[in-house]
Amino acid sequence: MYEIAELKSLAVSLLERCGVPAVDAGKTADVLVAAELRDIPSHGMLRLYDYIRMLQSGRINPVAKPFIVHESPSTLTLDGDNGLGPVVSELAMHYAIEKAHKAGTAWVAVRNSNHFGIAGYYAMQALSHNMIGLCMCNANPLVAPTFSALGMLGTNPLAVAIPARKEPPFVADFATAAIARGKVDLLQKQGLPIREGFVQNPDGSPSNDPGILTKGGAILPLGSTREYGSHKGYCMASVIDIFSALLSGANFGPFVPPSVDWLPVKDNLPGKGTGHFFGAMRINAFCPEDVFLEGMDHWITTMRNAKPAKGAERVIIPGDPEREAAEKNKNKGVPLKDKVKEQLRELCKELDVDCHYL
Amino acid sequence: MYEIAELKSLAVSLLERCGVPAVDAGKTADVLVAAELRDIPSHGMLRLYDYIRMLQSGRINPVAKPFIVHESPSTLTLDGDNGLGPVVSELAMHYAIEKAHKAGTAWVAVRNSNHFGIAGYYAMQALSHNMIGLCMCNANPLVAPTFSALGMLGTNPLAVAIPARKEPPFVADFATAAIARGKVDLLQKQGLPIREGFVQNPDGSPSNDPGILTKGGAILPLGSTREYGSHKGYCMASVIDIFSALLSGANFGPFVPPSVDWLPVKDNLPGKGTGHFFGAMRINAFCPEDVFLEGMDHWITTMRNAKPAKGAERVIIPGDPEREAAEKNKNKGVPLKDKVKEQLRELCKELDVDCHYL
Repeated sequence: MYEIAELKSLAVSLLERCGVPAVDAGKTADVLVAAELRDIPSHGMLRLYDYIRMLQSGRINPVAKPFIVHESPSTLTLDGDNGLGPVVSELAMHYAIEKAHKAGTAWVAVRNSNHFGIAGYYAMQALSHNMIGLCMCNANPLVAPTFSALGMLGTNPLAVAIPARKEPPFVADFATAAIARGKVDLLQKQGLPIREGFVQNPDGSPSNDPGILTKGGAILPLGSTREYGSHKGYCMASVIDIFSALLSGANFGPFVPPSVDWLPVKDNLPGKGTGHFFGAMRINAFCPEDVFLEGMDHWITTMRNAKPAKGAERVIIPGDPEREAAEKNKNKGVPLKDKVKEQLRELCKELDVDCHYL
Repeated sequence: MYEIAELKSLAVSLLERCGVPAVDAGKTADVLVAAELRDIPSHGMLRLYDYIRMLQSGRINPVAKPFIVHESPSTLTLDGDNGLGPVVSELAMHYAIEKAHKAGTAWVAVRNSNHFGIAGYYAMQALSHNMIGLCMCNANPLVAPTFSALGMLGTNPLAVAIPARKEPPFVADFATAAIARGKVDLLQKQGLPIREGFVQNPDGSPSNDPGILTKGGAILPLGSTREYGSHKGYCMASVIDIFSALLSGANFGPFVPPSVDWLPVKDNLPGKGTGHFFGAMRINAFCPEDVFLEGMDHWITTMRNAKPAKGAERVIIPGDPEREAAEKNKNKGVPLKDKVKEQLRELCKELDVDCHYL
């Protein structure tokens, strides 16, 4: 098990060695360790290796200075200057919150950014301001629209954080695909087939091969097959793609650049980098804060106390499992997979960073 | 086949006989016939019977005067005065558009309203202003959250309308449940079982009985089972419920009143009526209009021209089927189901409205 402080310090040191200023390295490390704390290791220290390689190959700008492209009272468009996703995104959400204080709500479209870690991190920035936070992002095309043979959209996540009073906040954070890529890869490693309705062959026919994604296959949208509503997941991923890319001037759908340096960037891209979209909604721009926060407590307890289905333990409020994990992991630390440890040791050796405890 | 103008005139006459002012009757009829035009008869003339019975029993206010409860530059909270959903919603979206002209975006939370027909109608109001329109609504509890035995949330629809230049607009309009109630009822009428993953028994176990909804059963969220991502559909339905009800002061989840007069209203409701949530986002508050509209054309043609999956004809752009249906139905008229015709004849006889052509 590794202490969170240790992992953060390691991430900061490695990022600084690649020319990232201390403050920005700290912000990036915060997002990565937040994912570890919340038991989402697929978006945690595992990503540091790719961030470092992208910085080293010049595909991410270590000293990015994001700049405002356009503004209205409740909107802002930010060019991320091709910086680290977490650095750009923390700033974008800061702008959203600042503007929502005046305008009631505010919405920030971001272009020219990169992989930003867990969407929930930025949505949650709004909570301490008694605002609802929203965050979405497009990603490289792994998901096939309904009736499409090929992946044309990302797993495009959506996060919504809503404050309550006595109850902990409601925090939804989910990809709009039927299954996470990480889960597909895990089945492949275990040599197990994948059940129908998660992935498809390059001709769009159903597949049971968890290795199909490396052979031109694609993941199905949330909803799985058309019969079970994949067109709804396709709609959601599309809206997230359009908000993230077209309002900001980033790349959409099949043009979203990869977030790893071992995959090439296509030529003649229609936009700049990866896109995000953030929102902040001030509660008391709609109704008295007290009424809403007590209403949220009522909502949460009503759902939490709902009669569980046969065989189920309880109804879960979005955000509960991650928050409970974070409370536990804060003290006892988190494990790292062997592959992640190896990669971190490799980086530490190369960049002369102490990692004797790894 | 029935001409749209005939059906509209019939709806207006019946609503006027119940004390609804002509303008409001016209607005309501417009929404109902728009659903018929777009081949969504479940939200068309079929609903008129329930609207009339709700008006007659005093559960909908025919002469409602919706009023503003709260405002900020980019937000507004509207009390629908318990009016017809379409009347309240058309006004709410009008306010959203008006405010978005100044603030860049605007968001209107509505309480004390009723069933509003198709969500897409209101989202599409934004298109001619070169704005993106959003609309969501909660509904009476038919959908079981993941791990819940009972229905606690509505089929809570989300609609997003996005303008393009040469291409027709992108219009997504979908319920956040695994299946529409209408489809479940149809299987029941046909005496056919329903496949697993759509509905559940009152103890939360899987059911193949399409009649289970009348016996305390529930519909599963978008995503179907937990394995296939029902927790994501549960998150979406929850966010829509919270935006529609808690920001506005309407009833949430299990407390949302029924939209038919033959089901009783619960006592001691925590809020007022049904809730909606509308948004309008001005394109040029984010980027130059031309760039966005051409970008949308590019997005639409890219997806439309994607290689179809084996056995599929083409990739469909959200809104295509409904628009194509409307173009066809505009000239040739629409059919009505026998039950709908019977109900309309019953109303016409009772309210002394001419319906010799029915």
